[in-house]
Amino acid sequence: MEQGILLFAHGARDPQWALPFEAVAARLRVQAPDTPVELAFLEFMTPDLLEAGERLAAAGCRHVNVVPLFLGAGGHVRKDLPVLLQQLSALHPDVSWMLNPAVGETAEVVEAMAASALRMSAAR
Amino acid sequence: MEQGILLFAHGARDPQWALPFEAVAARLRVQAPDTPVELAFLEFMTPDLLEAGERLAAAGCRHVNVVPLFLGAGGHVRKDLPVLLQQLSALHPDVSWMLNPAVGETAEVVEAMAASALRMSAAR
Repeated sequence: MEQGILLFAHGARDPQWALPFEAVAARLRVQAPDTPVELAFLEFMTPDLLEAGERLAAAGCRHVNVVPLFLGAGGHVRKDLPVLLQQLSALHPDVSWMLNPAVGETAEVVEAMAASALRMSAAR
Repeated sequence: MEQGILLFAHGARDPQWALPFEAVAARLRVQAPDTPVELAFLEFMTPDLLEAGERLAAAGCRHVNVVPLFLGAGGHVRKDLPVLLQQLSALHPDVSWMLNPAVGETAEVVEAMAASALRMSAAR
């Protein structure tokens, strides 16, 4: 059954804000060329989670990993996202939507943030 | 002249939200044991930037690298943070406060987010 990845970010008024998130999506599309990847936003930017999820379902995905591109898991990840996922699940009951931890809570990202902070400090 | 690192995160109502940011600070303190490191928040959590900056100045830091622990650089990084840094600069004119890019905009963190998303997807 086809897998898909649904990245979920906060969104902001400044279009430049989205660049790192678009870079993550682009990187995943290179690293997993057979896996459909969509990037969705909670607010200010499009597509929203329902529209991006719809695209993955239309692409034939039956197992979608939802990955919150948030550093900390606060209300947006713990409360807003589950509600949106319930709506997506009701619209597409034939797809399993799997909620993952916020990337910021993973060891890779914590290590990378520390490495980045250290490199920037050493360079000045 | 003594260097310091001032990490700046958004803050949230949920205390658990701060865990990844505290992990970054802890990691830096291990990796750079001679460099004072403080973690500050924009809202909901303490200390704020002025209080954390005050601690670094009191510790004898004369060059402080301010590192925004944000994924994208929106209004908080582009507008709120420079205003706070001006206040800090006015209070401590003998310290140079150097503003760095948001960690989420660095290659290390973009790569780590993609790796983390890929690992979580592969595991399910």
